[in-house]
Amino acid sequence: MNIKEAIVNRRSIKHFDPEHQMTEAEIHELMSHVILSPTAFNIQHWRFVRVIDPAKRQQIQAASFGQTQVTEASLLLVLCADLNAWEKQPKRYWREAPQDVQDFLLPAIADYYTNHHQAQRDECFRSSSIAAMSIMLMAQEMGYDSCPMDGFDFDKVAKIINLPHDHIITMMMVVGKKKVDARPRAGQLPLNEVFFDDSF
Amino acid sequence: MNIKEAIVNRRSIKHFDPEHQMTEAEIHELMSHVILSPTAFNIQHWRFVRVIDPAKRQQIQAASFGQTQVTEASLLLVLCADLNAWEKQPKRYWREAPQDVQDFLLPAIADYYTNHHQAQRDECFRSSSIAAMSIMLMAQEMGYDSCPMDGFDFDKVAKIINLPHDHIITMMMVVGKKKVDARPRAGQLPLNEVFFDDSF
Repeated sequence: MNIKEAIVNRRSIKHFDPEHQMTEAEIHELMSHVILSPTAFNIQHWRFVRVIDPAKRQQIQAASFGQTQVTEASLLLVLCADLNAWEKQPKRYWREAPQDVQDFLLPAIADYYTNHHQAQRDECFRSSSIAAMSIMLMAQEMGYDSCPMDGFDFDKVAKIINLPHDHIITMMMVVGKKKVDARPRAGQLPLNEVFFDDSF
Repeated sequence: MNIKEAIVNRRSIKHFDPEHQMTEAEIHELMSHVILSPTAFNIQHWRFVRVIDPAKRQQIQAASFGQTQVTEASLLLVLCADLNAWEKQPKRYWREAPQDVQDFLLPAIADYYTNHHQAQRDECFRSSSIAAMSIMLMAQEMGYDSCPMDGFDFDKVAKIINLPHDHIITMMMVVGKKKVDARPRAGQLPLNEVFFDDSF
């Protein structure tokens, strides 16, 4: 499936076939592509938690206003990011780069994030949301549908997945076999209301 | 081009052919697909500023540590978002939905964002970064390359594009004809370091 088709066909689906199971090979194919998405300074601070345990799925559904896609979809991913990945052995993110590139980038990473707490947090959302679109479009290509979610109690889900204190949850994503089509797009803004030349 | 090829082939490119011009038809094709990406509650709060004016391009390059892709790429987009789009006539985001859907969603939007300033900001990064990956993959399909950027002085660029006080810049993106290949990927983390089952 080409990119345009995938973008046009992708809709946020709420009802999935609860019987369908994705294979481990499919999930590996999906995720191994997703992690080729870009991150600033290649810090790859995204962390993906796949929730398999039915009891945890039920708990997360309860923390998500009962939304049924949480338990019905084949795959439930909690998208997280490590706020401090930038300072955790950053050399590994550039280990195969030429020495002069490493010598430039490693101090630049420290300079960009040290004591810049809002920048650290913004970066988490930036990277994992870029990855989220890779998940959604890969799902299309693989014959699946998806739904990005932020309508849930982030603190409750953090406890359920034992989120480390220096990580944040950025969103959740479900992937599975669609059971009910999405409604037609309900209120697209025209391009000229969101796209401007040179300045606001 | 299919999704997998586009994801594998996409690299952050720093050197573009400064002579190449994208047509208005190409830019319309690109952006009209990008705005089909999802936003929470369909609030479509992203705003994209295409910087054409050469003087502004020069100023933004100076605010970006001199990075040459800012002036050499065919297209420079400043990705922004309106922090308060959720409260600006939200009915328009659901105008074609059934009345019961509107009756449920419009109060839910107000409830999700009112006085939740961090949620408003996080949502801006979430939505515009999802759109960013659509730009990067559409660029691949259209025979272009891209580079997402957050290495610049956000305040300076905000002044250059006359950013409204209730908007934020989330990143910049360049698109153009590649002149120099990216270096090989320099330090991919293996999947099992970023992908976990059930909990950390």
